[in-house]
Amino acid sequence: MTSSRRRVVVVLGGNAFAPPGAPLTMAGQFRFAHEALATLGPLLDRDVELVVGHGNGPQVGHMLVRVEEALGKAYALPLEVCVAESEGELGYVLAQTLGNLSRERGAPRPIASLLTQVEVDPADPAFGRPDKPVGPFYDAAQADALRAKGFAVKEDAGRGFRRVVPSPEPRAIVDVEIVSGLLSMGAIVVAAGGGGIPVTRAPDGTLHGLDAVIDKDLTAAVLAQAIGAELLVILTAIDAAYLDHGTDRRRPLRRASPAEVRAHAAEGHFAPGSMGPKMEAAARFASRAGCRAVICDPPSLAEALAGRAGTSVVEDAEAR
Amino acid sequence: MTSSRRRVVVVLGGNAFAPPGAPLTMAGQFRFAHEALATLGPLLDRDVELVVGHGNGPQVGHMLVRVEEALGKAYALPLEVCVAESEGELGYVLAQTLGNLSRERGAPRPIASLLTQVEVDPADPAFGRPDKPVGPFYDAAQADALRAKGFAVKEDAGRGFRRVVPSPEPRAIVDVEIVSGLLSMGAIVVAAGGGGIPVTRAPDGTLHGLDAVIDKDLTAAVLAQAIGAELLVILTAIDAAYLDHGTDRRRPLRRASPAEVRAHAAEGHFAPGSMGPKMEAAARFASRAGCRAVICDPPSLAEALAGRAGTSVVEDAEAR
Repeated sequence: MTSSRRRVVVVLGGNAFAPPGAPLTMAGQFRFAHEALATLGPLLDRDVELVVGHGNGPQVGHMLVRVEEALGKAYALPLEVCVAESEGELGYVLAQTLGNLSRERGAPRPIASLLTQVEVDPADPAFGRPDKPVGPFYDAAQADALRAKGFAVKEDAGRGFRRVVPSPEPRAIVDVEIVSGLLSMGAIVVAAGGGGIPVTRAPDGTLHGLDAVIDKDLTAAVLAQAIGAELLVILTAIDAAYLDHGTDRRRPLRRASPAEVRAHAAEGHFAPGSMGPKMEAAARFASRAGCRAVICDPPSLAEALAGRAGTSVVEDAEAR
Repeated sequence: MTSSRRRVVVVLGGNAFAPPGAPLTMAGQFRFAHEALATLGPLLDRDVELVVGHGNGPQVGHMLVRVEEALGKAYALPLEVCVAESEGELGYVLAQTLGNLSRERGAPRPIASLLTQVEVDPADPAFGRPDKPVGPFYDAAQADALRAKGFAVKEDAGRGFRRVVPSPEPRAIVDVEIVSGLLSMGAIVVAAGGGGIPVTRAPDGTLHGLDAVIDKDLTAAVLAQAIGAELLVILTAIDAAYLDHGTDRRRPLRRASPAEVRAHAAEGHFAPGSMGPKMEAAARFASRAGCRAVICDPPSLAEALAGRAGTSVVEDAEAR
């Protein structure tokens, strides 16, 4: 299913749909998706086979608020259905935006926006240790009420309490041959939004949803490997990964091998739940020869691809 | 893009995801989708190129309740985004269910569940005459408050007041070649859920969403024609279309030509907003030689395909 054209996977953070601190609105999400994706420039053209993924943290947070406020008046949504709905919402925003951007470049492309199920292992230790915060902040009394209803709740950095849910490892993209086939047809593909809908395969081979969320960057690495991509771009709110972030020795990590990334991570340079999984996803993807992962913010993308900004993770140490 | 295998489009009503009168739940939606789609039987096998669409009325109704209850705490969703989210929710339910059913039949198939934009004409008279009821029922005071906020509201058959929204004609499925390409690859395709996400094309060719909903059966007819399907199946809560429905002369319409359907419709045999658009969709699709539309409930499907139940609309009058 691979082709002679370059395959590239780009993941856009869920926070890239609004400016920092600004309230989330649908009009704003369209505006900021357009701004962020315009930086893809030539990656939108026909000589590139492009897959675009996205985060969904803020959007799922708002969904959980809506579900909670309407309890008893509208049916509840398990987390994996919130992920599916967020793939609907943002998959639409991205499909329309990518189509419009390719048209504005004078080279309109068909866009296929897919719902994506991702297999996880029901024996993943994450299920016994929910630690991914989702949804709004609660005070101590609300937190106790949630615990009484069976939800796992944790204090979040002094800002209040939040629900925490399992975030298992992505094992495989269900029907990944669909993505490859669409790329070969010339479509830009939107897939694996929010890390994908977590499912498990029963002994008879059938799939069933799980109340969990998967890290979007780790899923993007699995998807990028499965389709034989040569470049994985993780677009986030910061221009590069930094060593000694938050100290006066802070310096950008411009280029590193997967082994060096792991060594830096072991020394605590990357924040868990934030730059940590991005760097781990980059290291996993770049562990194959010829594969490069780039982490940067949208304005830095062109310079980062040229190696003059952002963070690149590549195996070929001698090239540094 | 057409192939030698039979192309079939099946549309499942939004009410087919719960038994009549039962409250909607996610677990229930999975159960009833499985029950309804199991009746497709051999249409799930590899010698058929199958597209599955779905309604979303009840699901979007619940979304609007959630949005309303959380106003000020979570961002609002315009209707076209509710449609997109419903394509996420039900597209996931259908993808998982179709995959599992094909596996249970011993012939697992890849499933591609797509978000679908559908072009409408912004000059469609429906925009000046909103008449499609959506969301919950309100009392007279709530209805006045909604009107004051700029919403169109109408009394619904003595059951209270509901918001009414424009339901323009579907003109074209955006990127319909994606659907054809996926069918040729051997995938079952879920597409055009809820009638598709209504968009309009600006003079520069870019697409933009509209606050409206499109009839799912009329969209299915447009899609079925565009991909060269030979069979359109509209699955609903009643076993067939009836003449003189609700009277003691009530009798099923077993087979009719498009012209006969239009004549019956002009005599008022089919309820507007219910059997009316289904029969109109069937008549439009069947107006091409070799095309047949079938309307029935899931339990009648096998018999309806054999011409012994349901309602078939076909152009070849002599075959009757």
